[in-house]
Amino acid sequence: MSKVTCDMAVSLDGFTAGPNQSLDKPFGEGEDGRLTRWMTEEPEAHAEVLESITAAGAFIMGRNMFGPSRGDWDLEWTGWWGDEPPYHAPVFVLTHHEREPVEMKGGTTFTFVTEGIEAALAQAREAAGDAAVAIAGGAHTVNQYLAAGAIDELRLHVAPVVLGAGERLFEGVGDVDLEPVGKPWGTDLVTHLTYRVNR
Amino acid sequence: MSKVTCDMAVSLDGFTAGPNQSLDKPFGEGEDGRLTRWMTEEPEAHAEVLESITAAGAFIMGRNMFGPSRGDWDLEWTGWWGDEPPYHAPVFVLTHHEREPVEMKGGTTFTFVTEGIEAALAQAREAAGDAAVAIAGGAHTVNQYLAAGAIDELRLHVAPVVLGAGERLFEGVGDVDLEPVGKPWGTDLVTHLTYRVNR
Repeated sequence: MSKVTCDMAVSLDGFTAGPNQSLDKPFGEGEDGRLTRWMTEEPEAHAEVLESITAAGAFIMGRNMFGPSRGDWDLEWTGWWGDEPPYHAPVFVLTHHEREPVEMKGGTTFTFVTEGIEAALAQAREAAGDAAVAIAGGAHTVNQYLAAGAIDELRLHVAPVVLGAGERLFEGVGDVDLEPVGKPWGTDLVTHLTYRVNR
Repeated sequence: MSKVTCDMAVSLDGFTAGPNQSLDKPFGEGEDGRLTRWMTEEPEAHAEVLESITAAGAFIMGRNMFGPSRGDWDLEWTGWWGDEPPYHAPVFVLTHHEREPVEMKGGTTFTFVTEGIEAALAQAREAAGDAAVAIAGGAHTVNQYLAAGAIDELRLHVAPVVLGAGERLFEGVGDVDLEPVGKPWGTDLVTHLTYRVNR
């Protein structure tokens, strides 16, 4: 069965985004691109990490990671991710509002799942085949899958940043049994930590 | 002037202790020794880190790190740390209740400071001479010194543990400018991360 992975860019105090995420500030207030500077400023140094993030055969994300709107769909909106999203694979979006799939350039299809996290995972597993399923975020979605014991490998990319408020990883996940995998490493902009989640 | 250092054993979700710290559970509920297993089970692997923790010329700690009592002093109590505490140096204890200094075996003297964090730091600097001053904890004390911009080097020892509640590092410290120092490293029980705090 597919391995379920999760990569999260996170502040040293455990936030994956600041408060009040919006169209202008998808990572919330106070973040100012600091959680992902390593991706934009040092892509070569982290090439292997960046590849592994998008290597999955299918992705799952919360609705807030798909777009800033809430409630009924704004059908003009096709995500933060531009015409050709970086996923190049099926992406399952958790939502309470039904919507027809949206096909993007480059092989990314957004499929909207209203039946909950287990249903989304089952669909993603089927779409991924032998490849991994990645829980793409945000924190609320990751926390739900962690609490359900559904994530096999958690890869944290810790920026030397203190956000102080926002979306917090690990909130309400219970007692998760983690085991470091490989060696931690990093640059001035990020430290990469990988954990196996034992069941 | 003395460098001000701070070593903190911390869970992956940012707690330095679980909730409801008490005489029986100095690290609070749910911690069960898991934040400091690396110290007790792998002292050789981390010998250099352990030495650097106690290398300072003077230490500052919050009252809750000195003992479980609150309010007026129980004068029978001389700390969690046994007859010969591991500090072997002057230790300044932040408190609102005056008390005469307590001299322990091995060179540790607990001096009780009621005039606040700046006064304690001034006394510790004087006692330390050219050696470092270490902010020993707990989280509340460290957060006060971080918010005051008084810590030069923060050394986090991150256990692969999710506590979910308790005393949280970085709470209310504002926007701290951190810069990784050296390379992160660790074992299955802990990851060591060092940061310079820029002013």
